[in-house]
Amino acid sequence: MADVAEEKRIVVAVDEGDESMYALTWCLKNFVSPNTENTLILVYVRPPPPVYTSLDGTGYLFAEDMMATMQKYSEDLAESVMERAKRIYQDFDNVKVEKKVGSGDARDVICEMVVKLGADVLVMGTHSYGFIKRALLGSVSDYCAKNAKCPVLIVKR
Amino acid sequence: MADVAEEKRIVVAVDEGDESMYALTWCLKNFVSPNTENTLILVYVRPPPPVYTSLDGTGYLFAEDMMATMQKYSEDLAESVMERAKRIYQDFDNVKVEKKVGSGDARDVICEMVVKLGADVLVMGTHSYGFIKRALLGSVSDYCAKNAKCPVLIVKR
Repeated sequence: MADVAEEKRIVVAVDEGDESMYALTWCLKNFVSPNTENTLILVYVRPPPPVYTSLDGTGYLFAEDMMATMQKYSEDLAESVMERAKRIYQDFDNVKVEKKVGSGDARDVICEMVVKLGADVLVMGTHSYGFIKRALLGSVSDYCAKNAKCPVLIVKR
Repeated sequence: MADVAEEKRIVVAVDEGDESMYALTWCLKNFVSPNTENTLILVYVRPPPPVYTSLDGTGYLFAEDMMATMQKYSEDLAESVMERAKRIYQDFDNVKVEKKVGSGDARDVICEMVVKLGADVLVMGTHSYGFIKRALLGSVSDYCAKNAKCPVLIVKR
């Protein structure tokens, strides 16, 4: 028999959307076999912090305050996404899980992480990362399917 | 443990290019586990026969002759692609293989076949189906990633 890869590092990009949770579930059922030494790596990308310019003293204070709030919100969001993912993967035995949270443009961060993490495959849902961002920047999954330096599995609902 | 899917029907779109053979190899090594009841379905799509109009008797005869030659060429090509694929999958034990040859626009035919064959996943290389056709019609894999009614795995070299 030909040489079959023993261990796979499977990166799943997760976000707030149901699509990515569906992709995670599909991936666990069909790809991450519990009998092998596969590692599931969940990647969540926070949007970059907004840049504010201060036109006066009051504005500056307001911006600093608001940025702290948004930072907190962004951290809570990351935590809640990982929590939701956990409720899915904890039903599967013997799955090694790692979690990574990045920050920036999801398209670039995911493509960079795939290299850094030595991913064997990247799994993504479609329609990730919000309606408006998608309209402005194009689909994250389209971009990664073209540019990520590993095979990309697009799971649609 | 959660319910893990037992049998998968894995469709791999193959063509004349090295990309698709690489995708097939990757898929066999990483996705089609020899211990399960997975079925590998190779799909090859022949281009549709060209349409000739006959302006005179001689032209008509010529066109008929040429179409027969092209038909033969197209059949030989399909056979050689499947033969090449066989040299890859025969190294893997216990893999059930089915082969399907379609005809028409690869993008539509693959998306239709995925439904008809009850595919659990579609595996494709990128840059399939020739330089000129890609320039004219766009990438087959891009189209299928967006439109196929099942998860799509894009394997790049």
